[in-house]
Amino acid sequence: MVTAIVLIRAMRVEVTRVAEALAALEGVSEVYSVGGRYDLVAILRVSNNEEMARLVTQRMALVEGIRETETMPAFQAFSRHDLEAMFTVGE
Amino acid sequence: MVTAIVLIRAMRVEVTRVAEALAALEGVSEVYSVGGRYDLVAILRVSNNEEMARLVTQRMALVEGIRETETMPAFQAFSRHDLEAMFTVGE
Amino acid sequence: MVTAIVLIRAMRVEVTRVAEALAALEGVSEVYSVGGRYDLVAILRVSNNEEMARLVTQRMALVEGIRETETMPAFQAFSRHDLEAMFTVGE
Amino acid sequence: MVTAIVLIRAMRVEVTRVAEALAALEGVSEVYSVGGRYDLVAILRVSNNEEMARLVTQRMALVEGIRETETMPAFQAFSRHDLEAMFTVGE
Amino acid sequence: MVTAIVLIRAMRVEVTRVAEALAALEGVSEVYSVGGRYDLVAILRVSNNEEMARLVTQRMALVEGIRETETMPAFQAFSRHDLEAMFTVGE
Amino acid sequence: MVTAIVLIRAMRVEVTRVAEALAALEGVSEVYSVGGRYDLVAILRVSNNEEMARLVTQRMALVEGIRETETMPAFQAFSRHDLEAMFTVGE
Amino acid sequence: MVTAIVLIRAMRVEVTRVAEALAALEGVSEVYSVGGRYDLVAILRVSNNEEMARLVTQRMALVEGIRETETMPAFQAFSRHDLEAMFTVGE
Amino acid sequence: MVTAIVLIRAMRVEVTRVAEALAALEGVSEVYSVGGRYDLVAILRVSNNEEMARLVTQRMALVEGIRETETMPAFQAFSRHDLEAMFTVGE
Amino acid sequence: MVTAIVLIRAMRVEVTRVAEALAALEGVSEVYSVGGRYDLVAILRVSNNEEMARLVTQRMALVEGIRETETMPAFQAFSRHDLEAMFTVGE
Amino acid sequence: MVTAIVLIRAMRVEVTRVAEALAALEGVSEVYSVGGRYDLVAILRVSNNEEMARLVTQRMALVEGIRETETMPAFQAFSRHDLEAMFTVGE
Repeated sequence: MVTAIVLIRAMRVEVTRVAEALAALEGVSEVYSVGGRYDLVAILRVSNNEEMARLVTQRMALVEGIRETETMPAFQAFSRHDLEAMFTVGE
Repeated sequence: MVTAIVLIRAMRVEVTRVAEALAALEGVSEVYSVGGRYDLVAILRVSNNEEMARLVTQRMALVEGIRETETMPAFQAFSRHDLEAMFTVGE
Repeated sequence: MVTAIVLIRAMRVEVTRVAEALAALEGVSEVYSVGGRYDLVAILRVSNNEEMARLVTQRMALVEGIRETETMPAFQAFSRHDLEAMFTVGE
Repeated sequence: MVTAIVLIRAMRVEVTRVAEALAALEGVSEVYSVGGRYDLVAILRVSNNEEMARLVTQRMALVEGIRETETMPAFQAFSRHDLEAMFTVGE
Repeated sequence: MVTAIVLIRAMRVEVTRVAEALAALEGVSEVYSVGGRYDLVAILRVSNNEEMARLVTQRMALVEGIRETETMPAFQAFSRHDLEAMFTVGE
Repeated sequence: MVTAIVLIRAMRVEVTRVAEALAALEGVSEVYSVGGRYDLVAILRVSNNEEMARLVTQRMALVEGIRETETMPAFQAFSRHDLEAMFTVGE
Repeated sequence: MVTAIVLIRAMRVEVTRVAEALAALEGVSEVYSVGGRYDLVAILRVSNNEEMARLVTQRMALVEGIRETETMPAFQAFSRHDLEAMFTVGE
Repeated sequence: MVTAIVLIRAMRVEVTRVAEALAALEGVSEVYSVGGRYDLVAILRVSNNEEMARLVTQRMALVEGIRETETMPAFQAFSRHDLEAMFTVGE
Repeated sequence: MVTAIVLIRAMRVEVTRVAEALAALEGVSEVYSVGGRYDLVAILRVSNNEEMARLVTQRMALVEGIRETETMPAFQAFSRHDLEAMFTVGE
Repeated sequence: MVTAIVLIRAMRVEVTRVAEALAALEGVSEVYSVGGRYDLVAILRVSNNEEMARLVTQRMALVEGIRETETMPAFQAFSRHDLEAMFTVGE
């Protein structure tokens, strides 16, 4: 599983429509309208890097009303469950 | 339910330790080490704004090795399920 | 009660009109024209996060003449009255 | 009456203490801990420009734990009441 | 007397015309074409905050060819004469 | 006559002292404590470029408590008087 | 051999087309679509500085759909092979 | 195969040493000292995302003299050979 | 003699034409196409501040294809010859 | 001949000393103290890319009092003489 977090600035009057259009794409697990410098944050979860490439540079690129995106691919996920369970990331 | 996404820059040698310390906090649902300008992204989910205030300004503030954070509180969540079920903002 | 402070850059010739249009929206408690990098600061006060979402991403988005906004949702309010009275924020 | 909005970045572990110290100063009407790039927003209200100068460059400067401030003096206030009463900038 | 310093970026071919148009406005005491990141610096001197509001958000806003402004209202003036004379700013 | 405008960020607790120290330097005609991203703005007026070099890189550099400066040398001055007298750039 | 790394922001819907157009240019050794603030990174390798000038300011400039580029000419290359072999860069 | 490009700012006197230390790490294919805003660019090539996580957040983090890094994971590689052979993203 | 260094961003397809147009202006001693965040650097040398004002705000402003400029007027020149010869800048 | 322009921020009290130290280095043709966001601009001229690497990453790195540098290697030089003589990029 490959995860990425995407920070998005949208056209002002389009924020809700962009959020819905993104949420409807396969591979987009959640979209949040947020406070701060960005309008939306999307969480992407796909099965490999090639699908991520297609989602980010092709399918998301076709959603209209997006002004700017900054994609942050996740290297590793940390969660309490993992920590309680087995997690022994050599450090 | 109140959600926030937090962008985090950590001390270089501390990234993994900070990620684990954050993931161990109640209310921190996931932490990702990421590419791009930030080191970590944390997803917070708590039951109301007061808990969010405590988590962000008090409990997370005690985690050492964090250089800078930018918290983006979510106003609204969009997901395919919601869209299919015709929009019922869980809050 | 949910509060947010919004930093706004408006079209140059529209600053006063934008300020008036924002001040007329329900949930916008005050608008200030200000010096510095921003043109206007708006203080929003609504009764819950859902209304905040609607105010920020839908009703404010329809005000014309706004170039850019940065919304800062308040986690917690501090004031002398609170401090004198009961305030015992565990710290 | 002279108003200013101040954006504040504080030392991470000091955010709550700084907020309380600021809120205790005469002339500081409200302080909010906020999401986004800043930690706190303070609303200042004093009776003239000289008092504002003293509050910003002298009294607030003595509060420890502040890393950076950006003061936005308000030129004019807009609110629904004023609009209804046909604009009388309190100053 | 209220003073403000305004940093201005103008359309490239308009710098001189903008400078002249600003210098012709009542309340604009001097305009300089400058090196660095900005094109012009204007010094404004008016008799009170209301006039400053009108000058900055209304009359200057009508000067064409301005791309961006950043207004820095002065809190306090320091000069050798003041220092030699009576200046005893409690510190 | 050569003019320069200097934007200054000072140590928080030193703003007033830095302003007074700068105002006491020969060639510094005025210093203002200001709102916005900077703490102080100084207006320098000396008789030629060599004196400006000495004032900026040597004498001002010795004033303690300054964190950062950005000097904007003026190429040309515009003022209503000049405009009325048909432009004679004093230099 | 002269090397340069180029950071590229492209029009959103053009990222793949721009990447292919760049990769087809002689002297462009690789192009990557990337996460973070940029859309593409291109690695250029040509035989001398004059060819680099022509590639960057003329041939790449004709590729449509590029919004912004930042070219980082390489001064020196470091690799394990060089290090194992002869590398004795006086230090 | 997973690729990432890393932009690096190093301590001024350490640039060459940092470049050599990075180039000696397994998974770091090339390091360039470059002109522009960054000091070094490293090209990382490892066999999967987990190794990338370990290389970036653990092994590179131990190299001393690095001030700041910005990692850009590659989604897809484009090269003339691929284009000639009709696009087969090696991954 | 008055010197200024000008950092220039040009329209992508115009970089060479802008460089030639600038180099043809009297007072522009050299123009370089450069790597990094800027496209061109111009070195200006004229006999006094008034000519510099005219060159920067009027004649250069007419060159088409320039997006942005940042002019850095030189206060003082340092060179080995000066140092070997007489240079005794009181310090 | 290889040319580079270097933008430099120096420690405030060191600007003149840094300028002299840089000007004394072989390969540094001129150094200017300048207005604007930077303190100094150095023009480097050496005979090839390897010497440029050594000058920038090793010899200049040893000059104390420099806070930050941004090196812009020149791809091509344009000057009136060249234009008159029909472009022969000396390299």
